[in-house]
Amino acid sequence: MRLRIRDYGIKVGVMTPGPRNSIADVEGVTVGHCAEDDFLKGVHTGVTVVVPAEGSMFREKLPAAVSVFNGFGKSAGLMQIEEKGTLETAIVLTGVSSVGVLYDALFRREMERDAEICRAEGSVNPVICECNDSFLNDARLSRLGREHLDAAFFSASSDFAEGSAGAGRGMSCFQLKGGIGSASRVVNLPAADSTVPGLSGGNERIGNFTVGVLVLANFGTLSCLTIAGRHLGPQIEAAMGASMQASIQASIQASTEKAPEKGAERGSVIIVVATDAPLDSRQLKRLAHRSFLGIGRTGSFAGDGSGDVAVAFSTACRIPHASPENGCVLCKILHENHIDPFFKGTAEAVEEAVLNALAAAEPMKGRDGNQRRSLSEFLPAL
Amino acid sequence: MRLRIRDYGIKVGVMTPGPRNSIADVEGVTVGHCAEDDFLKGVHTGVTVVVPAEGSMFREKLPAAVSVFNGFGKSAGLMQIEEKGTLETAIVLTGVSSVGVLYDALFRREMERDAEICRAEGSVNPVICECNDSFLNDARLSRLGREHLDAAFFSASSDFAEGSAGAGRGMSCFQLKGGIGSASRVVNLPAADSTVPGLSGGNERIGNFTVGVLVLANFGTLSCLTIAGRHLGPQIEAAMGASMQASIQASIQASTEKAPEKGAERGSVIIVVATDAPLDSRQLKRLAHRSFLGIGRTGSFAGDGSGDVAVAFSTACRIPHASPENGCVLCKILHENHIDPFFKGTAEAVEEAVLNALAAAEPMKGRDGNQRRSLSEFLPAL
Amino acid sequence: MRLRIRDYGIKVGVMTPGPRNSIADVEGVTVGHCAEDDFLKGVHTGVTVVVPAEGSMFREKLPAAVSVFNGFGKSAGLMQIEEKGTLETAIVLTGVSSVGVLYDALFRREMERDAEICRAEGSVNPVICECNDSFLNDARLSRLGREHLDAAFFSASSDFAEGSAGAGRGMSCFQLKGGIGSASRVVNLPAADSTVPGLSGGNERIGNFTVGVLVLANFGTLSCLTIAGRHLGPQIEAAMGASMQASIQASIQASTEKAPEKGAERGSVIIVVATDAPLDSRQLKRLAHRSFLGIGRTGSFAGDGSGDVAVAFSTACRIPHASPENGCVLCKILHENHIDPFFKGTAEAVEEAVLNALAAAEPMKGRDGNQRRSLSEFLPAL
Amino acid sequence: MRLRIRDYGIKVGVMTPGPRNSIADVEGVTVGHCAEDDFLKGVHTGVTVVVPAEGSMFREKLPAAVSVFNGFGKSAGLMQIEEKGTLETAIVLTGVSSVGVLYDALFRREMERDAEICRAEGSVNPVICECNDSFLNDARLSRLGREHLDAAFFSASSDFAEGSAGAGRGMSCFQLKGGIGSASRVVNLPAADSTVPGLSGGNERIGNFTVGVLVLANFGTLSCLTIAGRHLGPQIEAAMGASMQASIQASIQASTEKAPEKGAERGSVIIVVATDAPLDSRQLKRLAHRSFLGIGRTGSFAGDGSGDVAVAFSTACRIPHASPENGCVLCKILHENHIDPFFKGTAEAVEEAVLNALAAAEPMKGRDGNQRRSLSEFLPAL
Repeated sequence: MRLRIRDYGIKVGVMTPGPRNSIADVEGVTVGHCAEDDFLKGVHTGVTVVVPAEGSMFREKLPAAVSVFNGFGKSAGLMQIEEKGTLETAIVLTGVSSVGVLYDALFRREMERDAEICRAEGSVNPVICECNDSFLNDARLSRLGREHLDAAFFSASSDFAEGSAGAGRGMSCFQLKGGIGSASRVVNLPAADSTVPGLSGGNERIGNFTVGVLVLANFGTLSCLTIAGRHLGPQIEAAMGASMQASIQASIQASTEKAPEKGAERGSVIIVVATDAPLDSRQLKRLAHRSFLGIGRTGSFAGDGSGDVAVAFSTACRIPHASPENGCVLCKILHENHIDPFFKGTAEAVEEAVLNALAAAEPMKGRDGNQRRSLSEFLPAL
Repeated sequence: MRLRIRDYGIKVGVMTPGPRNSIADVEGVTVGHCAEDDFLKGVHTGVTVVVPAEGSMFREKLPAAVSVFNGFGKSAGLMQIEEKGTLETAIVLTGVSSVGVLYDALFRREMERDAEICRAEGSVNPVICECNDSFLNDARLSRLGREHLDAAFFSASSDFAEGSAGAGRGMSCFQLKGGIGSASRVVNLPAADSTVPGLSGGNERIGNFTVGVLVLANFGTLSCLTIAGRHLGPQIEAAMGASMQASIQASIQASTEKAPEKGAERGSVIIVVATDAPLDSRQLKRLAHRSFLGIGRTGSFAGDGSGDVAVAFSTACRIPHASPENGCVLCKILHENHIDPFFKGTAEAVEEAVLNALAAAEPMKGRDGNQRRSLSEFLPAL
Repeated sequence: MRLRIRDYGIKVGVMTPGPRNSIADVEGVTVGHCAEDDFLKGVHTGVTVVVPAEGSMFREKLPAAVSVFNGFGKSAGLMQIEEKGTLETAIVLTGVSSVGVLYDALFRREMERDAEICRAEGSVNPVICECNDSFLNDARLSRLGREHLDAAFFSASSDFAEGSAGAGRGMSCFQLKGGIGSASRVVNLPAADSTVPGLSGGNERIGNFTVGVLVLANFGTLSCLTIAGRHLGPQIEAAMGASMQASIQASIQASTEKAPEKGAERGSVIIVVATDAPLDSRQLKRLAHRSFLGIGRTGSFAGDGSGDVAVAFSTACRIPHASPENGCVLCKILHENHIDPFFKGTAEAVEEAVLNALAAAEPMKGRDGNQRRSLSEFLPAL
Repeated sequence: MRLRIRDYGIKVGVMTPGPRNSIADVEGVTVGHCAEDDFLKGVHTGVTVVVPAEGSMFREKLPAAVSVFNGFGKSAGLMQIEEKGTLETAIVLTGVSSVGVLYDALFRREMERDAEICRAEGSVNPVICECNDSFLNDARLSRLGREHLDAAFFSASSDFAEGSAGAGRGMSCFQLKGGIGSASRVVNLPAADSTVPGLSGGNERIGNFTVGVLVLANFGTLSCLTIAGRHLGPQIEAAMGASMQASIQASIQASTEKAPEKGAERGSVIIVVATDAPLDSRQLKRLAHRSFLGIGRTGSFAGDGSGDVAVAFSTACRIPHASPENGCVLCKILHENHIDPFFKGTAEAVEEAVLNALAAAEPMKGRDGNQRRSLSEFLPAL
């Protein structure tokens, strides 16, 4: 296991992480990876699946929401989450050139698992989120398929790798090696009577909850990198040396999204927010928004380049595909007076998850000589 | 009581209206009016309040949502409904020049009713929706105040006038006299087991619900008017006579919103949708959207001029301002498989409500010789 | 060529259609189809491409916008249109089970056409819109591929078939055979000086423009069908006979989206709106909204089932992918005082396009004995 | 003049501020204040006007956009900006209890300035944005009027006070005294040919532009306060002393928005973003979004309490109310490849503007003994 940002003595925020400090602290959430490298072709890409819950999510959906901070991206499946407020498949993360095939693969996989999809029942809504990994990966040559998706599902576990694993394989972040990162925060809501004046004392406690996040980090310019409030990007730039920098700049100009402004921010970030608190889709949308505050704290200005997208879900209740006999769903929903710690926890966890992605990712040489250093090379000296 | 569109033998849609065929068929909903005329000044304006429920809506809020089809308008208070999914005051309808003063009046009124607003508790969100009545009303001279608002609340009842009552006083619709209209539809959801294959029979029925709507209709060009599918606008134009038409055109050019394209649609419509079905804010937003289908069926193309806005709420549950001890709200929510009849009922009721506004409004002479005929003058011959 | 709705003496709206009364009246817009039938497998599906303009749309993008009236659908590529206000590929329409593969096919096709995509330049945003054709088509067995997409592009022309052509192959509309339909309206804007009081006379005219629309119609319940204002659905139901009806009901229960409420509206509609008027993305979004008024006039209440989505674009200007030397784009944009005829034309054309889809579609037997009659069988008697 | 955050040697971000380091660095933008104190009544409130440009903004509108990060607020006039993409009045900032009266005052003021509003022309859209100042100010007793608005306009200047001036009078930020703050950043876009490979050299330069922001800062909990990356809130808390803290906590519990969670973030922030770069409303919306990254960097997690709203406008072009003879508006719009520095500048300037508000605001005793210390008391020791 690679070191994480806390292993370097760097603490992000003030709230307490869960035992794994990952999205898997939300019970039932697992993450699986599959990556592919073809050094001859310059192919370095992969797929990551976030599995929100066991059982059929098509039959028993999860409350969910989407927040799009910058829609310059190609993610699929978000429109239906927005309309219906539910998630009915795993969330698949990948590189830009595999969206279509993995969409198809997930759609077929779900049909195989449920014989009534597109028969007695309607279709299913695959959720595929992407970042553009074409700096390190030859996106023109790479395309994953059903076997990679199945492998990712097969490996899904509450213990999972960060950094260049899965969809993170070819990702860059702050012009360093980026990829998958995760973190979590515990929200301990004391009994309401101890904090709300005027309420008579009861014995019932609201409870302990967790917010867990996973990011696919592929954004940012090095000069902006800020680590737990310290603007360290310029120091790292200096450490990398002028010549190195020049070669990076040259390769950027030769290979990435859009004609590069000096200091332009390219790339994108996908954020998955999970919680076991009983939040409905409207509340989850509010959580999803807050994830971008965490992104901003790492130094990002959410550059024009491809999209900044967050998907949030709750595992606290399941919404049946078929109507119950009485035609209604009974939901317990957190009173919104208690939502602030979840907002705060989301922002903190997202910031830490990005740093974990940077810390865990190993340096990498990709297509056409393009390469990325790892933050871990510089962290000890910072 | 003026005749309504059904009194002319014209039926809109296929669903069954409630006993009053008005928004007041949703139990607890009442409507009050207050209008003001000053013939010397050319002031003809008013205020209408839709009171969704008894008791303090600040302390016990209603699930609510907004849909903005055309945001060219000045309504206030919608942003918070969108964010929080709740309504905490009555909905006030009025003319464009009274938005500010009635906003203040409603804010003060709520503070008087609840000593903790802006003290131990936060502020309250007044909802004021407007249409531009400046064709018949001299908006530069008119401004309603607290006394009109209080009078409207005082008169609130499940029996209320349509047409030129209250906020409808100075409104025009399809270049005829417009104003307030209402209608309702009954949604009878049979026991789930009789319609959903595969569910074992139970005795529980989902129940009977009502969708009620109220419109403040101030939109449309006569040439487009369509009544229950019949494109009758041109016939009415002919009946009004060429000279009359010319005088109307001239007065339009002299007095209304924006430089007039020939056949431009000006004005706007505010739609309030109420239901006693257990819908949450997301579902209510979907209902609110469908109200514009009803508007479209009357011949409107939702012209550039001021806004087309719908506010929807449910009386089926109340969301407490203060958190319960256990920190959660327990909600019964309709399973979305059963929502279609509510969509259909909303579209039908909105179409009929507009026609009721037209049928009920008497002809009127307003400021500067501007005048509007009444649809009721032409209906018998159509 | 099959008869169109006007061939039956039925006129929709009052504005004048263009010479083709189709989306191809907008100069440069072409439409291509490719369908596939496998009677043994029950596969009846296809793809339609709307090609907005000649040349590289990646290098010279079109202003564009999206309006989602009901987001219960799986269309891909809409998020980026919303964010960037531009369209950079053709719009591909298809059935629900081909979204992923056609997404991939279009992505690859674009990369082949432009060697710098995912190299010196960023990636490209494929736009794939779908309706669920699984009533007539065995969506579990069907999946189109690159060859179908290429064939559709190859066939693209300003003359194109309606009804069951291309993506319309397996679609149902108002429980009749549905599919592709198109229509257009001419907007003649006279010289501003003749309509705007106070402007001195000039010689410049604003000009003649066209709004053209294409629909993929797969929505509605027969009992609601309204043709040019006449509520004819029930008559057609009667003509179809009780037994026939019953068999249709049974097949619906066995095979379509979600547990069916009696009278539930399923399916969806994709609307493409094209214009040669100089509208920017904000204005195009407003146009796109109005298309749903046309849908409403056909009797739809925009049922819960999959999505109602409109994409609008203008061919009046091209936005270069690379920045010009001076860093700016010079745009001529229609003053919004003149936009109403475009709103009205969009609503009218969409209504007519749906009826054209119904009129042109032949009756069809699909998978598992499911079948749809054609409106053309009933039109002569109505 | 009070010291600003840079006077303490604290630098925010890396970009260069304009000469005033305020929103007035955008040429033509002025800011005026009027505040009112009534110590007997506990009234401490005010109004601030941001005047975007000279001349009639109703006749010559500015491109504008809105971004709502948290809609829990009562601002009015935003809906029309969203729909029409233009701003046609000054932006008025104030406390929660003056929204209605100042809405009316601005509406009347505009009618007086233009005799055709609500006559030959349509109505005008006042923009009133608010934060809840009811901790220090007795909002139940305070209500500003036309005279305060006029005084604020009268005082409008490119030199203006920060901190407790105008609308900032009763505001709190991070549980310290908050209010008005401003900052700016210069964006120097070199000639395109020097940065974009493959473009032949030209002499034309894109130019120098400015992004200026003004905030009404009324948000945050002290424990979260982060100054230029340093998490200093806890130190300040310690410096304030335990007893002091306790009294603050008690007063919070007695007097502010909603039942207080421990550590809940209340209040809100209004952000005005101005630029002289030629951006259209879609681009301005993207700018407005980025302002919340700056808010996040100060330690905010955008708590549930009232709203976080940004309004952005460009002074680079004016959109005429009446259509030109040729019916079109000619606009030069920045190519979006150059937009990143504006995003970065917005985020930086917003962060600094909040710190300037905190630095400039003097300590204050308000209603019922509620009080706020000033950041300036602690800055020297930090």
